[in-house]
Amino acid sequence: MTVRISHTAEVQKFFENASGFDNDLGNSRMKTVVHRVLNDAVKIIEDLQVTPEEFWKAVNYLNELGSRQEAGLLVAGLGLEHYLDLLMDAEDEQAGRAGGTPRTIEGPLYVAGAPLCQHEARLDDGTDDATVMFMEGRVFGTDGAPLANAMVDVWHANTNGTYSYFDPSQSEFNLRRRIQTDAEGRYRFRSIVPSGYGCPPDGPTQQLLDQIGRHGQRPAHIHFFISAEGHRHLTTQINLAGEKYLHDDFAYATRDELIAEIRFIDDAEQAKARGVEGRFAELTFDFTLPPSDEAREQQRRERKRALEA
Amino acid sequence: MTVRISHTAEVQKFFENASGFDNDLGNSRMKTVVHRVLNDAVKIIEDLQVTPEEFWKAVNYLNELGSRQEAGLLVAGLGLEHYLDLLMDAEDEQAGRAGGTPRTIEGPLYVAGAPLCQHEARLDDGTDDATVMFMEGRVFGTDGAPLANAMVDVWHANTNGTYSYFDPSQSEFNLRRRIQTDAEGRYRFRSIVPSGYGCPPDGPTQQLLDQIGRHGQRPAHIHFFISAEGHRHLTTQINLAGEKYLHDDFAYATRDELIAEIRFIDDAEQAKARGVEGRFAELTFDFTLPPSDEAREQQRRERKRALEA
Repeated sequence: MTVRISHTAEVQKFFENASGFDNDLGNSRMKTVVHRVLNDAVKIIEDLQVTPEEFWKAVNYLNELGSRQEAGLLVAGLGLEHYLDLLMDAEDEQAGRAGGTPRTIEGPLYVAGAPLCQHEARLDDGTDDATVMFMEGRVFGTDGAPLANAMVDVWHANTNGTYSYFDPSQSEFNLRRRIQTDAEGRYRFRSIVPSGYGCPPDGPTQQLLDQIGRHGQRPAHIHFFISAEGHRHLTTQINLAGEKYLHDDFAYATRDELIAEIRFIDDAEQAKARGVEGRFAELTFDFTLPPSDEAREQQRRERKRALEA
Repeated sequence: MTVRISHTAEVQKFFENASGFDNDLGNSRMKTVVHRVLNDAVKIIEDLQVTPEEFWKAVNYLNELGSRQEAGLLVAGLGLEHYLDLLMDAEDEQAGRAGGTPRTIEGPLYVAGAPLCQHEARLDDGTDDATVMFMEGRVFGTDGAPLANAMVDVWHANTNGTYSYFDPSQSEFNLRRRIQTDAEGRYRFRSIVPSGYGCPPDGPTQQLLDQIGRHGQRPAHIHFFISAEGHRHLTTQINLAGEKYLHDDFAYATRDELIAEIRFIDDAEQAKARGVEGRFAELTFDFTLPPSDEAREQQRRERKRALEA
């Protein structure tokens, strides 16, 4: 039986009241958004004949999602964060602002305030029995000029695919550093080869993905915020070529221009020169930033982040 | 600048993939719902030009909402729970099933398994220095016949407007009882006059209500689940006449047929006969249930509830 009431004057008036249209207090933008969400929600209920049982399951799901702090993970997994990237790309193109290294999703696992280093850094605390990775590269403007004192804010997972701070077994800021480039725009760091990330298997994001027949895995990747005076801030990730989920990332972050070849080296002499033993890996990636005079564009988007003021 | 991409074949295909349409696993109903929610969400983003900052505020809000377990409170406050009542009313009317005491919202504060009593009960533990309230009434079928052994499952707030279990300062099942009616369909209980409920002032529901210029207050009320063999289960509430928020309930639960006059009595002799001292209150309310042969209709709707198996 299909019964619809949302179009009636009575229900329309009711949701206008519930959205605060009948009062002069509060924030009109918020009222507009709430009113739209309410109307869309009840159209979904009527169009799909959502039962009260389904409605209450959804309500309970929201409680579970928040209690595990997984809303940011879910919007990545459902593609909404990648959609925002596509939308910003389209806005850039329409405004004639395209160019530079492509953006891709930040994800929910950044932690502000990692140690600040000049030109080079070691990211790992030495406790992960992993393959040592040396990564280096340069930061350029789209005019080809190297950017000195650019900020390379890097974070990545350990070999369990988990991130320090969110994984309390790791040391503070493990695999997180902020590195300022040298006069030639160079940065370099020593770290470990990260593993792919998987959603917490007992969490609400994985639970929903299971119900729609999808996995919750990401290929190994390295996150970056890149910024420099007079240039647009870049939020991006480097994906390691050859990874199983490289083109099947549950969070849709992989972009062709962001795939980097990782070179595994088994040469004892090169290892010695690097000060390591056995196999190690090398990775090179340059970033390019378009110019911008707007202070807002020179910074990362506002978002609640761990330890960020 | 208005940029739209959600209608493009590329983005449509993307959300089909994100919703699991490209795989044969999982649950097709869930895929349909997720796909619809994603499409509606991005139409909201494009129509209202939702900024990334607003998007991330919303994501963070979901985390806060769930961390406080307030999703059930929010859907009541935004009128969605009342809307479901209106929709069920319309379905009943269309199916020729109208009749009996009107339903109204359950709210998120029921706790399963309250002590089971025969015909009468005392609900309060005696610690609340409140006005004693005697409530009684009968349960009838819509044919006028009294219903013996009907279940009157009652819960209400204390004078602070808080509920046992959710307010850990109250004793177990304080102001919660299940009472079975006698051969004449009678129930009666002694309790205290409840106060109105207010949303937790520091919680995300009140925070959103503030932003849309609305209060988060409810008039004093008493919740009931009423059920009897061969009859439809009833979820309802009695509102006390004369309350400030009687017709301005933030959860929209008040219905004219559910308003009850509470009688305050200052007669010492009557108090003595009731075994109390000083002012007390009396309240009478009868419930009427339509017949039903369907087992599903004889039970409350499935929903996650505290202590319910």
